Amino acid sequence: MKNIRDSVHGNLYLDEFEIKLVDTPQIQRLRRIKQLGFTYLVYPGANHSRFEHSIGTMHVASKIADSVGLDEHTKKMIRSCALLHDIGHGPFSHVSEGVLDTPHEYQTSKVIKESEISDILSEMFDPKEIIDIIHGKGPLGHIISSELDADRMDYLVRDSYYTGVAYGMIDVERLVSSMKLEDSLVIGIKGIQAAESALIARYLMYPSVYQHHTTRIINSMFRRCMKWMFEADLVNSNTIYKYDDADITTIARSHDGQIKDIINRLDNRNLFKRVFTIKLSDLEEPKDVFKIKDKKLKKIELEIAADLGSHPEYTIIDIPEYPFFNEMRTQVSVGNECVKLNEISNLVSALKNMRFNYADICIYVPDEYAEKASKFPFEDYLELTMQKNIKDWL
Amino acid sequence: MKNIRDSVHGNLYLDEFEIKLVDTPQIQRLRRIKQLGFTYLVYPGANHSRFEHSIGTMHVASKIADSVGLDEHTKKMIRSCALLHDIGHGPFSHVSEGVLDTPHEYQTSKVIKESEISDILSEMFDPKEIIDIIHGKGPLGHIISSELDADRMDYLVRDSYYTGVAYGMIDVERLVSSMKLEDSLVIGIKGIQAAESALIARYLMYPSVYQHHTTRIINSMFRRCMKWMFEADLVNSNTIYKYDDADITTIARSHDGQIKDIINRLDNRNLFKRVFTIKLSDLEEPKDVFKIKDKKLKKIELEIAADLGSHPEYTIIDIPEYPFFNEMRTQVSVGNECVKLNEISNLVSALKNMRFNYADICIYVPDEYAEKASKFPFEDYLELTMQKNIKDWL
Amino acid sequence: MKNIRDSVHGNLYLDEFEIKLVDTPQIQRLRRIKQLGFTYLVYPGANHSRFEHSIGTMHVASKIADSVGLDEHTKKMIRSCALLHDIGHGPFSHVSEGVLDTPHEYQTSKVIKESEISDILSEMFDPKEIIDIIHGKGPLGHIISSELDADRMDYLVRDSYYTGVAYGMIDVERLVSSMKLEDSLVIGIKGIQAAESALIARYLMYPSVYQHHTTRIINSMFRRCMKWMFEADLVNSNTIYKYDDADITTIARSHDGQIKDIINRLDNRNLFKRVFTIKLSDLEEPKDVFKIKDKKLKKIELEIAADLGSHPEYTIIDIPEYPFFNEMRTQVSVGNECVKLNEISNLVSALKNMRFNYADICIYVPDEYAEKASKFPFEDYLELTMQKNIKDWL
Amino acid sequence: MKNIRDSVHGNLYLDEFEIKLVDTPQIQRLRRIKQLGFTYLVYPGANHSRFEHSIGTMHVASKIADSVGLDEHTKKMIRSCALLHDIGHGPFSHVSEGVLDTPHEYQTSKVIKESEISDILSEMFDPKEIIDIIHGKGPLGHIISSELDADRMDYLVRDSYYTGVAYGMIDVERLVSSMKLEDSLVIGIKGIQAAESALIARYLMYPSVYQHHTTRIINSMFRRCMKWMFEADLVNSNTIYKYDDADITTIARSHDGQIKDIINRLDNRNLFKRVFTIKLSDLEEPKDVFKIKDKKLKKIELEIAADLGSHPEYTIIDIPEYPFFNEMRTQVSVGNECVKLNEISNLVSALKNMRFNYADICIYVPDEYAEKASKFPFEDYLELTMQKNIKDWL
Repeated sequence: MKNIRDSVHGNLYLDEFEIKLVDTPQIQRLRRIKQLGFTYLVYPGANHSRFEHSIGTMHVASKIADSVGLDEHTKKMIRSCALLHDIGHGPFSHVSEGVLDTPHEYQTSKVIKESEISDILSEMFDPKEIIDIIHGKGPLGHIISSELDADRMDYLVRDSYYTGVAYGMIDVERLVSSMKLEDSLVIGIKGIQAAESALIARYLMYPSVYQHHTTRIINSMFRRCMKWMFEADLVNSNTIYKYDDADITTIARSHDGQIKDIINRLDNRNLFKRVFTIKLSDLEEPKDVFKIKDKKLKKIELEIAADLGSHPEYTIIDIPEYPFFNEMRTQVSVGNECVKLNEISNLVSALKNMRFNYADICIYVPDEYAEKASKFPFEDYLELTMQKNIKDWL
Repeated sequence: MKNIRDSVHGNLYLDEFEIKLVDTPQIQRLRRIKQLGFTYLVYPGANHSRFEHSIGTMHVASKIADSVGLDEHTKKMIRSCALLHDIGHGPFSHVSEGVLDTPHEYQTSKVIKESEISDILSEMFDPKEIIDIIHGKGPLGHIISSELDADRMDYLVRDSYYTGVAYGMIDVERLVSSMKLEDSLVIGIKGIQAAESALIARYLMYPSVYQHHTTRIINSMFRRCMKWMFEADLVNSNTIYKYDDADITTIARSHDGQIKDIINRLDNRNLFKRVFTIKLSDLEEPKDVFKIKDKKLKKIELEIAADLGSHPEYTIIDIPEYPFFNEMRTQVSVGNECVKLNEISNLVSALKNMRFNYADICIYVPDEYAEKASKFPFEDYLELTMQKNIKDWL
Repeated sequence: MKNIRDSVHGNLYLDEFEIKLVDTPQIQRLRRIKQLGFTYLVYPGANHSRFEHSIGTMHVASKIADSVGLDEHTKKMIRSCALLHDIGHGPFSHVSEGVLDTPHEYQTSKVIKESEISDILSEMFDPKEIIDIIHGKGPLGHIISSELDADRMDYLVRDSYYTGVAYGMIDVERLVSSMKLEDSLVIGIKGIQAAESALIARYLMYPSVYQHHTTRIINSMFRRCMKWMFEADLVNSNTIYKYDDADITTIARSHDGQIKDIINRLDNRNLFKRVFTIKLSDLEEPKDVFKIKDKKLKKIELEIAADLGSHPEYTIIDIPEYPFFNEMRTQVSVGNECVKLNEISNLVSALKNMRFNYADICIYVPDEYAEKASKFPFEDYLELTMQKNIKDWL
Repeated sequence: MKNIRDSVHGNLYLDEFEIKLVDTPQIQRLRRIKQLGFTYLVYPGANHSRFEHSIGTMHVASKIADSVGLDEHTKKMIRSCALLHDIGHGPFSHVSEGVLDTPHEYQTSKVIKESEISDILSEMFDPKEIIDIIHGKGPLGHIISSELDADRMDYLVRDSYYTGVAYGMIDVERLVSSMKLEDSLVIGIKGIQAAESALIARYLMYPSVYQHHTTRIINSMFRRCMKWMFEADLVNSNTIYKYDDADITTIARSHDGQIKDIINRLDNRNLFKRVFTIKLSDLEEPKDVFKIKDKKLKKIELEIAADLGSHPEYTIIDIPEYPFFNEMRTQVSVGNECVKLNEISNLVSALKNMRFNYADICIYVPDEYAEKASKFPFEDYLELTMQKNIKDWL
């Protein structure tokens, strides 16, 4: 047994088989990918890596396995799944996903199949079963990927620890100890309050960390930069999964023009400014926003840039991420039946209705256009004052 | 006032002038330099940056300024000094220092003078005075650089937080509240116990973090790699201070031969193995070890490699860092006079005598030679069994 | 300056004048009164005292004073108010209030006027002004007693620390740093999230700590015991404020009959059992419950006891405390105007509507009647199935 | 399984058998006995009880049992021993021991044998074996009572948590995970540093908590009060073990004369003053001090009181507790043999030699004699200036 010291969960123990997995280049690469991408430009402590999160998820999954009474072999299998669950992440984690065709989950199965990991796994398990569990299939899959899984429990606590944002503190132990594995992973009555508080943590960390307005500006800038890098064939769908954060950064730095300019701006924290914002909750049909076509957006950006006199590529309309709130569907075991958490908890049901509150559409331009932009009628271009018109964009 | 959330000290507040300093590329670069170099390969959470440490040092220095009763202007000056004190660090912090001619302190003054920082500082202070204070000159300099300064108090607590090693916790508040500024920064009687515990923290973190045996292997490998990079003119004394961790890593990756091989080994955590070790405390004159000439060492490495059949450049004799223990000379104010902490504290005086205990000379080779090496008579080559002979190396 | 070490806030500093106040028997008595009464029978760590809470409140009030920019003299006054704010508490804190005619606030002014505290205060302040501030009068009064005051901020954090219930963690620093003192104490936009999270802390700690069902049983038992002690003239409204927890306990132990029996049951944690419960949210008019007359309740208790065959004095109908939620009226400064927190925060407004969810009417009897009670038609006696009838009780 | 929330270790789980033990009046009584006696008068947060310590010790013992690989039945037995280990404590823990003939360990076996606990234990174990283990007999006994046992590990962490003194933080997990059970409980090489840091914690907490000079004054006052209570037959060796802190306090309050006066002084924190102090390390034979006879001390107290004009019973010479440091004899497993920790750790061996440093003989009198005492030649009476004479007292 080898001991790894985790700053969040304390001493974690891995056996020889697990160490063999950890020692593959694919897992080691996760040490060089930041869990929260560029969030360290907002919260200076947010430098933690996908690697520690993977080890931590293994620890939480292990606790769930104990709590629901899995046998040693199955527990070991779940531990390996947790360790491998993020192996398909691109550089800077989710930020790079925006410009990729395939979600990181798809990539996961590709990396496992095409690397030595498949051979190592075969010593003890069926790699296909591992991949299925990672993708959330079957009752066991729910431990790794479901409404309230080991992944989520680790990252909420971990992101809270490294950002210093206290709200994220959740009672992992209590939540886990109430769990049972039936057709799916369910929590018992005694775990409801811990689940509620986990959801509130998630709800509060959304605007202050995950969708912090400065983080959104930074991510928009970087996504644009990545798009150009793809177009210039500096990276492609095959190479990207071999790269780490340092690779992407230095490739961008050693290029010319806009690509270099954006990465320099990020390096020097010379960020675009937010010059317009409108809350989704002020729209008639907030959900329509998520159906807007990219082409339409691009067209409006160009119109704005032309009339405002700003750089056409540096004028960004930022549609927020869809505020998923899957945790509300966590299964709760009440007597002989299962109900969804939002059906039994008024607090969760209230959170469900509030999730569009923090989401807004924003427009960013470089500092040098900020003054001009302050008097610019962005509304007219977005046609948001005339609610019906948004339909035309879809 | 702008608020920055620090995971260690909580909410920190910076005024407009300080934000201007923070916004310079020179300070922003510190975000991309890990405080503990490659220690994250041993403690996965140790990804924290020089940037957060600089902000944190500013916070502690500010508390000291309040405690010793400095006026607002002087306090502001001390804060700027703290913020800038690490601006001359090369990539991977201390690890890169080993191969540089100049210490990072010298570089500090160069960076300040040759950049916009000098202009910003001139708005309020004399940049020369700032540099002097950073270099520990005068009573004010003791707040930034002395036996028990703001720098040290921040990094002990911070390194402890991110490695998860509990020993480092020190009572900053109590220590600071006992401080007085006379000809030098002194602590009062009430602070002795907090000072003792800070020294013990430092003493315990030495072997478990700063000189952890795996960290020493990694640092030895990287230092060698850096030396070759200098020899191949991939970096030089001018460029190195503009680079961050990512630059150095990717330059090495894109090169050939040993340079690429070493960085690949570090990327994949395929580390050299320790095949020999001898404690300094077993030597007759432990201190002589630190006078051994590099040439002599190189010669012995080559002899060993030839006879063992290992790669001559991959056979490393690692002399430990000199176990400085300056904190023991912390001034304590007792009645009307000042005494050194090790004169008044039996515990500190005991620690002083023990500091050579954890230090040892090690020899590392790649895994493939480890078996052969297990029967190799390294002692004979190091001539350590015959104590007098070490004199010949000096 | 004297230093007191607080386990929650760290080193706290008191000046000579404040130490004189602390050294009065009236403040020292608070060391012997548990902050959470009998909650230690549910959370074994909840042994903290009103004394530490008073010192802690002084610390938070001091931070608020700094944040809103009070001058030194006014800050000092606020600190004294915070230190004294709980001086009128009876033994076991709020538990004893249930049987007293006068709220502890009234008692506060009595204790100050009739003791040496008045003389000490007169050295620097007008004692009448101190009393007014403690009672929440004027803008300064809001720091001590209002919707989101120093008192509340300390006890939420402190109760969380000692019970080990994590939800209570609130970001005191952020909340305080956003505060401004206008006609009342208001928080700024930047403090809204910290305020929201404080309210959630309060909301979650309600059922798990303050109104934990076992705590409610214990408090019901003890209140009944106290009532008999008043009737037997073992304590009266004058003596009670001189007594501490130990006094009341041992007076009860040395008496006979029911008084001794109840205290013995509490000593040995031989508690009554909950045999019936109905949620307020299942009633047509939940708020009517709080208007039910004691006489009517007593009458129903006697009817139940007669028909169930249980001890008439040991059959307790427990009406919950009214779920006040004053924090929702915290003033928030938005632009040039002030709005209430629940008007601007959807989360707080949701919490407002949910506060009756955890409240329920319970019936308790000793263990020996629990089996019989399991088949007893309590509903019929409470007439709760026929909603309209509850009107008759008012 | 029942869940108890501990503020130090988190959620602890007890089975039905253990709950039966917890529910006995003998264990419940521990809720009403403060772990650190009157230390709450120095550290206001130190109100924690023997009860939580007992539950916590059970938790640590359980972890040790897991680490050394005990079977389920033996682990269960160890858990019960840990739960019961402090059952023989008098009120105010160690403070009351000073005036009792029998140590609390003797009392433990008496309480078990004469109460229902014996019957409950018999369902699963041999009560005699339980008692032997509690008293440290055999290898299993070492888990409960030895140089570095579950008891000590819990109280160091717990006392640190409640006093807010940070030094006490020890890495229980690391220490426990290195343990092996051979002829005795030994720690492995990997645990040495955690053991060293536990010993330093103990060393630093000695002067700042356990032998804080104000705590020593308070304890001296209370011990004298207890002695008079025994002489007045207010308590005796039989009743004392049935009493809790509240009983003793209120018995003293309701008596007359000196007994009432001392308890009033403690209630109001109107403490005796230290008017003389001499360090043991300044004596020729420090250890002789611990052999001084009570009668001789009493005689000198009376002489001093007569000449100083102070109250004869209120003039206290306080000999410190013998600074035991048994932890230094912790067995460490090195290769095939066991050595004592102080033989292998220079730090521990240094601490051993330093333990007399903080110990001193003190003399206390009430405040009203403090001024007179400031010029009084206490040395002459103690004859400590003439070292040889101390021999006469033995």
